[in-house]
Amino acid sequence: MTSSAQGPSRPGRRQLLRAGTAGAGVLGVGAAAIGLDRAVRDGPPASASPGALASAEPAPQGGASVPFYGAHQAGVETPAPASATFLALDLHDEVDREGILRLLRLLTDDAARLTQGRAALADTEPELAAEPASLTVTVGFGPRLLERAQREAPSWLAPLPAFEIDELDEQFTDGDLLLQIAAEDPLTVSHAARMLLKDARSFTRVRWVQRGFRRSPGIQAPGTTMRNLFGQVDGSANPQLGGEHFAKVVWIDEGPFAGGTSMVIRRIRMDMDGWDEADRTAREQATGTRLGDGAPLSGGTEFSHADFEKVSAHGFAVIPEFAHMRRARGVDDGEHQEIYRRPYNYDVAPPAGSSAISESGQLFVAFQADLAGQFLPIQRRLAELDLLNEWTTPIGSAVFAIPPGCAEGEYLGQSVLE
Amino acid sequence: MTSSAQGPSRPGRRQLLRAGTAGAGVLGVGAAAIGLDRAVRDGPPASASPGALASAEPAPQGGASVPFYGAHQAGVETPAPASATFLALDLHDEVDREGILRLLRLLTDDAARLTQGRAALADTEPELAAEPASLTVTVGFGPRLLERAQREAPSWLAPLPAFEIDELDEQFTDGDLLLQIAAEDPLTVSHAARMLLKDARSFTRVRWVQRGFRRSPGIQAPGTTMRNLFGQVDGSANPQLGGEHFAKVVWIDEGPFAGGTSMVIRRIRMDMDGWDEADRTAREQATGTRLGDGAPLSGGTEFSHADFEKVSAHGFAVIPEFAHMRRARGVDDGEHQEIYRRPYNYDVAPPAGSSAISESGQLFVAFQADLAGQFLPIQRRLAELDLLNEWTTPIGSAVFAIPPGCAEGEYLGQSVLE
Ligand code: HEM
Ligand code: HEM
Repeated sequence: MTSSAQGPSRPGRRQLLRAGTAGAGVLGVGAAAIGLDRAVRDGPPASASPGALASAEPAPQGGASVPFYGAHQAGVETPAPASATFLALDLHDEVDREGILRLLRLLTDDAARLTQGRAALADTEPELAAEPASLTVTVGFGPRLLERAQREAPSWLAPLPAFEIDELDEQFTDGDLLLQIAAEDPLTVSHAARMLLKDARSFTRVRWVQRGFRRSPGIQAPGTTMRNLFGQVDGSANPQLGGEHFAKVVWIDEGPFAGGTSMVIRRIRMDMDGWDEADRTAREQATGTRLGDGAPLSGGTEFSHADFEKVSAHGFAVIPEFAHMRRARGVDDGEHQEIYRRPYNYDVAPPAGSSAISESGQLFVAFQADLAGQFLPIQRRLAELDLLNEWTTPIGSAVFAIPPGCAEGEYLGQSVLE
Repeated sequence: MTSSAQGPSRPGRRQLLRAGTAGAGVLGVGAAAIGLDRAVRDGPPASASPGALASAEPAPQGGASVPFYGAHQAGVETPAPASATFLALDLHDEVDREGILRLLRLLTDDAARLTQGRAALADTEPELAAEPASLTVTVGFGPRLLERAQREAPSWLAPLPAFEIDELDEQFTDGDLLLQIAAEDPLTVSHAARMLLKDARSFTRVRWVQRGFRRSPGIQAPGTTMRNLFGQVDGSANPQLGGEHFAKVVWIDEGPFAGGTSMVIRRIRMDMDGWDEADRTAREQATGTRLGDGAPLSGGTEFSHADFEKVSAHGFAVIPEFAHMRRARGVDDGEHQEIYRRPYNYDVAPPAGSSAISESGQLFVAFQADLAGQFLPIQRRLAELDLLNEWTTPIGSAVFAIPPGCAEGEYLGQSVLE
């Protein structure tokens, strides 16, 4: 099974928009294809049952499932669902190579079942497993896990270099094993997280837990780019799911991690109070994009080509030199690396006793085939100069190696570890 | 505008089921009516547009809105949406009666706008206001607010008596002003919470913030009773929205709070590890209901009449004497009080350094016209004896007086405070 089974198999809204071929009718079909898995898409069409006409109500989406087995793990080239929990686990001291393999076999079995709406083997709340709601479970390795398993870690698998903008907190940083658990429904995510942790706890302890959210399913047209808590359209320049270009940007193509990828997760606090003080012009200049529709300041629509040469009547660059998207793209360094961003919003209670009214930001998640060649140059440029840095502070950071997917009978990470 | 504008205006699925009149066709219509507001329900029916047939995709639900003005505040007799934030605020020392009225005028204006998909007056992220997603904002008063406003607090407006089961934590207890902010979408909730807090912060400080979740919209058929993290069907015996019976149970009918209600919110930790050790029989006996479908152990379906007299072949009560639902109902004391429960699940990171794998439970929320006559006897009986207590611990508790709704030009609480 290939990655395309996890992504839309018909052209998506964004692809159509970019290609400039979208008529209203086509749009509807394209949009319907995004975010729904085969089980739902291939269900009986509305026209098959005349009774369906009487009710404007869609079938419940809880049963939608994303295939578990395949060349790649699910949860990367899969439309990002509404709710996600990221768990970093640390191996207990006594857990050796054999223990790690045992743990991965257990986790694989749990994930294979839960993602298909079946109870885990030792599931004590089987009723909560019944609605997979597009659940995916993605496993990642930290350097210590590979070392303990007596396998060489890829050279890039290490904490990111320290950046001047960082104010990292131990409690959101590093880890031996990563579980990314995501679904359209938060109850499904909670249940899956607990089932996995129950099997993991004789091998590991929880290092950190981070929960994030995006729009609930059905709130916006499928395929709409998410907004973050600054109100920005966030994700427009991402490579599109399901194509050759995506594969080139994201999937490692040789070595033990072939079919896998690298993952960076950074907890980035967003200073909402400071942001509120900035006027709309300053905000738009910070990223180089319009708040209203996400279009580049040089004009057009969300997916228009940004014109970095364009100058205002006063001779200033319309997309400022230090705008986030310009720095991220590396225009002025003659570079252009790409990564695939799959972030979630977070919004938690401010620390007790503080006078803050919110504590929120972004669980920034990026996947790329080549961490050193793609992610790092972007992050370095942004750390050096980026107008957006005035309002954002990385407070957690971790890097994981995502092994490829597995076939039935195998366990996640098998090709790397055996 | 009456409360029915906030609830389903056609018979709901549950009502039909209980009445025993549900055919499949009728079901579809009833279900479609729950949880969708007028704007959505009155949209063009699917059959009006032949093109709609080609796409199985429903219209985005982000635009759905719940009327703000009315005899009652929204957010009580409104189907509970997927995401909720509960905020308790404490008045700054210097805030007097005039300050309180000013604050309430600001909050009312914000809520009136945001719930209808319009940006708040000082909204710095107007784009995040565009999808109200059935947002409701419900305001409640603690005893100190009324005292400061020089109005007598109802006699019942005080912390609950201490119960032996309680292990209350200051950080989830009491408060001068309550904001219940709920919507089908968590981003909408976050944005609304921040807008309200920005206006509130010169008058108040945040005492506590609690976020909760239920199933995402569209995951299950509308009207499906929620499950909690123990996997139990939770809410079956609730009075139904939109009827005379609900009004009797929930709405105060005389005095300054006429049209309002009393609200109890308790953070109840659920011991997931302990629960996992109990077998299915012990679990079902704890509540007196079946895990599979929520039916009483005496048989039937979720909404069947429980037969408390029924005994097993061994002569034991089929619904044990100390089962939660039996104690809650007061069968053996010859009593039967009712309350309206509108709880949310919570699931947060376990405290740093602990060996726990989860920290979760229920934000138990109950509304009733007569706190002393309805809620207290139930809570006393449960605190005294309830099999479920073995796995649940109240760790936070607060009581608020919910003023009635208001008309355009008025502010929330006006009839109470002027
Ligand atoms: C809270 C922190 C951040 C916020 C709020 C943010 C926001 C944005 C926004 C609004 C855009 C423009 C729309 C789009 O294409 O998505 C953007 C683009 C981008 N961002 Fe960020 N970003 C953050 C952190 C980062 C980090 C840490 C990186 C990588 C190290 C990054 C890399 C990029 C890239 C590569 C683009 C696309 C540039 C292009 O080719 O047009 N961002 N970001
Ligand atoms: C985490 C704590 C709790 C859990 C997990 C829980 C769970 C349940 C369950 C599964 C039912 C049966 C289905 C239903 O009718 O909803 C039920 C019923 C009920 N519960 Fe709770 N409950 C909790 C706390 C409370 C509290 C604190 C109260 C009130 C003080 C309460 C009052 C009731 C009432 C009145 C009923 C309906 C009884 C009847 O007439 O059948 N519950 N609860």
